[in-house]
Amino acid sequence: MNTPMNSPTTLACRIHGAHDLRLEPEQAPDLGPHDVRLRLGAGGICGSDLHYWQHGKVGAFVVREPLVPGHEASGVVEAIGAAVTRVVPGDRVAINPSHPCGVCDYCRSGRGNLCRKMFFLGSASVFPHAQGMFRQAFVMGEAQLTPIAEAHISLGEIACAEPLSIGLHALHRAGPVLGETVLITGGGTIGCMSVLAARLAGAAHITVCDIHDRPLEMARTVGADQVLRSDQVDMKQLADSADVAIEAAGSAAALATCLMAVKRGGRVMQVGTLPAEIPFPANSVMARELDYRGVFRAHLAFDWAVQAIRSRRVDVRPLITAQMPLARSLEAFELAADKTRSTKVQVTAD
Amino acid sequence: MNTPMNSPTTLACRIHGAHDLRLEPEQAPDLGPHDVRLRLGAGGICGSDLHYWQHGKVGAFVVREPLVPGHEASGVVEAIGAAVTRVVPGDRVAINPSHPCGVCDYCRSGRGNLCRKMFFLGSASVFPHAQGMFRQAFVMGEAQLTPIAEAHISLGEIACAEPLSIGLHALHRAGPVLGETVLITGGGTIGCMSVLAARLAGAAHITVCDIHDRPLEMARTVGADQVLRSDQVDMKQLADSADVAIEAAGSAAALATCLMAVKRGGRVMQVGTLPAEIPFPANSVMARELDYRGVFRAHLAFDWAVQAIRSRRVDVRPLITAQMPLARSLEAFELAADKTRSTKVQVTAD
Amino acid sequence: MNTPMNSPTTLACRIHGAHDLRLEPEQAPDLGPHDVRLRLGAGGICGSDLHYWQHGKVGAFVVREPLVPGHEASGVVEAIGAAVTRVVPGDRVAINPSHPCGVCDYCRSGRGNLCRKMFFLGSASVFPHAQGMFRQAFVMGEAQLTPIAEAHISLGEIACAEPLSIGLHALHRAGPVLGETVLITGGGTIGCMSVLAARLAGAAHITVCDIHDRPLEMARTVGADQVLRSDQVDMKQLADSADVAIEAAGSAAALATCLMAVKRGGRVMQVGTLPAEIPFPANSVMARELDYRGVFRAHLAFDWAVQAIRSRRVDVRPLITAQMPLARSLEAFELAADKTRSTKVQVTAD
Amino acid sequence: MNTPMNSPTTLACRIHGAHDLRLEPEQAPDLGPHDVRLRLGAGGICGSDLHYWQHGKVGAFVVREPLVPGHEASGVVEAIGAAVTRVVPGDRVAINPSHPCGVCDYCRSGRGNLCRKMFFLGSASVFPHAQGMFRQAFVMGEAQLTPIAEAHISLGEIACAEPLSIGLHALHRAGPVLGETVLITGGGTIGCMSVLAARLAGAAHITVCDIHDRPLEMARTVGADQVLRSDQVDMKQLADSADVAIEAAGSAAALATCLMAVKRGGRVMQVGTLPAEIPFPANSVMARELDYRGVFRAHLAFDWAVQAIRSRRVDVRPLITAQMPLARSLEAFELAADKTRSTKVQVTAD
Repeated sequence: MNTPMNSPTTLACRIHGAHDLRLEPEQAPDLGPHDVRLRLGAGGICGSDLHYWQHGKVGAFVVREPLVPGHEASGVVEAIGAAVTRVVPGDRVAINPSHPCGVCDYCRSGRGNLCRKMFFLGSASVFPHAQGMFRQAFVMGEAQLTPIAEAHISLGEIACAEPLSIGLHALHRAGPVLGETVLITGGGTIGCMSVLAARLAGAAHITVCDIHDRPLEMARTVGADQVLRSDQVDMKQLADSADVAIEAAGSAAALATCLMAVKRGGRVMQVGTLPAEIPFPANSVMARELDYRGVFRAHLAFDWAVQAIRSRRVDVRPLITAQMPLARSLEAFELAADKTRSTKVQVTAD
Repeated sequence: MNTPMNSPTTLACRIHGAHDLRLEPEQAPDLGPHDVRLRLGAGGICGSDLHYWQHGKVGAFVVREPLVPGHEASGVVEAIGAAVTRVVPGDRVAINPSHPCGVCDYCRSGRGNLCRKMFFLGSASVFPHAQGMFRQAFVMGEAQLTPIAEAHISLGEIACAEPLSIGLHALHRAGPVLGETVLITGGGTIGCMSVLAARLAGAAHITVCDIHDRPLEMARTVGADQVLRSDQVDMKQLADSADVAIEAAGSAAALATCLMAVKRGGRVMQVGTLPAEIPFPANSVMARELDYRGVFRAHLAFDWAVQAIRSRRVDVRPLITAQMPLARSLEAFELAADKTRSTKVQVTAD
Repeated sequence: MNTPMNSPTTLACRIHGAHDLRLEPEQAPDLGPHDVRLRLGAGGICGSDLHYWQHGKVGAFVVREPLVPGHEASGVVEAIGAAVTRVVPGDRVAINPSHPCGVCDYCRSGRGNLCRKMFFLGSASVFPHAQGMFRQAFVMGEAQLTPIAEAHISLGEIACAEPLSIGLHALHRAGPVLGETVLITGGGTIGCMSVLAARLAGAAHITVCDIHDRPLEMARTVGADQVLRSDQVDMKQLADSADVAIEAAGSAAALATCLMAVKRGGRVMQVGTLPAEIPFPANSVMARELDYRGVFRAHLAFDWAVQAIRSRRVDVRPLITAQMPLARSLEAFELAADKTRSTKVQVTAD
Repeated sequence: MNTPMNSPTTLACRIHGAHDLRLEPEQAPDLGPHDVRLRLGAGGICGSDLHYWQHGKVGAFVVREPLVPGHEASGVVEAIGAAVTRVVPGDRVAINPSHPCGVCDYCRSGRGNLCRKMFFLGSASVFPHAQGMFRQAFVMGEAQLTPIAEAHISLGEIACAEPLSIGLHALHRAGPVLGETVLITGGGTIGCMSVLAARLAGAAHITVCDIHDRPLEMARTVGADQVLRSDQVDMKQLADSADVAIEAAGSAAALATCLMAVKRGGRVMQVGTLPAEIPFPANSVMARELDYRGVFRAHLAFDWAVQAIRSRRVDVRPLITAQMPLARSLEAFELAADKTRSTKVQVTAD
């Protein structure tokens, strides 16, 4: 089986602190019997990756040791452990970055994304940190992998399974939307993934608002029926119009728009990250009997996302603005941080 | 206001008993203040219409006076009552044939389709019968009407809102199918409407089985991923494969297939009409913790169907095999009864 | 039939504006065929009644003409219209104050409490106002009435059906609580009704907090397992402890306690009335995937409340602090406004 | 650590085949770090235990090696492995017999009771068989144990957590029953546990039917409002009367009663074991839009049951007919098999 000489020296992107992103050599670990060594296919830069880079933290999760970011990735199998049955070398795979414990009350009740013992790749939520996938090669348990046989589906598309899963999880939490009207605040990656998810789930009409033109163009490209510049039109026109609103902009103003825009009894889904405290029209939650629901990562929706991408019932290709080799990670992060120039930016092994 | 001279003499199709379908002149009634007189756009012949014609009854509902069949219809507004605000003459409209009482426990709890005081057009479930819409002109309360401004959507398509609503109601009752595998037994109108509904609701994979080729071709046309001749292949290959099965064939054998094909914990939706008593593997319902759920008519799904058709997110056009004027009703019924030659057959005013 | 001479002159309690409560004679209207004339059994004074009296308004609902308050009442049938079948003179009845329209989308989807055409007794939400039941006699459609044959159930208990329905509706909106831990902020009438409802629904453990001793004693009397003075103990001890929290205190601090006290994925039910804008930890809704749900009036839960009271599966008797004749309405309102001295105060005909 | 000398020789009840129940000595296995050695507190004899004894099998699960039956047990901790933290020697514990895998799709989606890799104690569903707890001492992973500190709760009551969990799982699958009418067919252990569960969940009215007097008396004792001898009264009186029916008799006739007795849109829960094929009124499932749902073992409800018993919100004591030492196992099985003389019979260590 595997000996140390099988573990090549490769390059990894590591965040040592705020604005301290380095490319460093490392040696992939040995393979256990159920492990798989993967070469990075594509790795999408997410908002939390940007936060680690820009601020050295995401909310309460502070970088306390060098952190390899990256939880949205596809890969190609390079080597497999002795007991592996799901994949063979050469397979192109989707990678689920989520490792719930499987035994706690959350896991047992079908809400593994809330597991307190969650090990989520590319995150400083635990210490030692859960090292991520922005590296040329890495090792993963086979249970995390889904081989994608469809040769016409690119590694970039496969890497979009994780962000699409957020949109699908939001829709799952929103309940059925057949025939319904959906408002989405924010036309970034998550906003657009929510458009795709709402469309897939049968929403009748989707409106997206944002303060920039580029996200709105992208939202329309992936299926929004109506797009609005929230800084240029009177959002009050949306009052009482939506069955479901999905807050994917991460601003208190956007949340206020969502709460105002849903009908009585409507559902407001919080996907974006908000400040610790904001002003909030709590009484309207009661008097209009609203449901305001958080959406945190995903769970079963990862598998749905893989299915939707491999069958191209959901086409994520327009969202991939650029791919750059890991060696140009800094440039990739800078582009990803500019929402007027990019939606999804991905890094690749070479 | 409307005077009797506004009510023209027109032609109606009436079933007087088994195999006794007649075309008879009638005079449309006067208009009350909230009433609308409509000219038939298109009226789809449904399985229950065929039953009334072939057997003089549908289950326990026996024709006891001449019955105008037809509950799947579109119309064009000819005249409106004094208080009507929803439509104006010339409007093309979708027509909801369902009149629940609005005050009983079923209506109050959101299940109006189960209302015991239901007045459902074209049905002998009440006496005097609820006369239907296979007539050149008829009067309807404005609350039943949705005007369709989209000129490119045909009257034939609009008339498909009712059968599509059955498929959508089945999906509603089935719960979310995002990422799921769906089996549908029967590729007739309701089976195909279920395909369209399951596709709209985001099902990942849809299989349809039938004992004829034509329905299977149609099912594939409207979106099935896989079609199977259940009399030619071993259905056991489907064992334990589906999250949801929709029985739309109306046969005990098809139901057995559904129960065998769903995974543990799966849902089996009964849309088709079955005999009063069949052999049933009840223990598997317990040991595999299945959900076996009836689907009766529709309710809110009618509005979803109208939305889906007018936006053409659902394209029902392939299902419309033929349109014939009311004067050729008998020929239309004969064609509709032959599933190897037709899916949906519609009658028109002229 | 009924003639004008059947309509006696009686006393009514009317609010003409802030702190302007008057007792005035009036003549009960004639009876239509489906109407019933009732003599007031008991009428509970609710927070909204107090608001009308103290401020001349409740939120956006301003007293614009003299308003008879009172929506929590029982009655005794005095006379019935010609077509009435549900009750006979002498019957003691529960009275549902809610009149949804029955035809709008809310009503059709089982959420009649959100009906925009709602006529809710004792409310200035419409104009002319929906006159309430703090009067010696009044007329009501028979559909609002449920006769209570159980002679041992008092008119005071029957009048508690409406406030109990709020607690039951909160539990309905909260979803199943079998085996769960529930926190309730506020030990007033609605808090205690929520205790009774949570107990009835099978909650495993119920904690109530309040800033006064009397409500806590009452909460314990009706079934709370633990009571806490929120101004005297460190509420942080509750962090991450509850599956469901019910905010029935109407304070931003109480809501903050609820949001902190629920576990990840927990549900926070907003029953109390809050200010138009409060500071709010929105990010925790996302990061902890909470459900924050409004609860507005009740709907089907009114019938459940009647059942629970008539069978005494729920015993509301400890909550009735005092009953006073309408002639002493002012005194009754003053007592009701003092939460250190009263829970539920009711007025009676004499 | 534990050495072999810590593992005493004890007595076990073993089924070698139909009507071949033997008492045999055995040595408890060594303790792994997370293991606990328990002395049997009380072990309830369940219908499946009786089936193994009477027929050498339960449905498709055939005894292929000597099987220790017993999955409803409480215990007292005798020794603990080095890493055990949940219990200490002397603790009285509830024991969850269910070991789902924790990683499959069923486990991840909150339906661990459907896990295909389930290891369920006292069952021949796997080979080697999952040996049960009718033995004086046995070893169990600490994760299966809940210590019960309440000294006034007997070991017999604690052992009822598993059968109560079936009733609670049935209610969980039935959805909210607040204010609803429930019919239960069969007044044996599971029927009575369903009565207790329905009462706990807030059902308004519970009817139980059976063909023997003793089960009906027991059902009334634990909370049924009405009991009926189904062989002596016309069950048609129940037509269209129940919101929920729970089939816990295991007979096709009882299921027919349930299907007839529920209202339109009602839910029928299948808890009892039925023949492989029965005659079934499938069309009424469609035309009355019923939900017919299987109930298989339990899952999260085990913890709810433990809570309910330890707090005595549910009092299972009347159901325990007799306790006998393991040495009298055969006598205990014979008593348990006679439903006119017993409800729950338990075996104890001595």
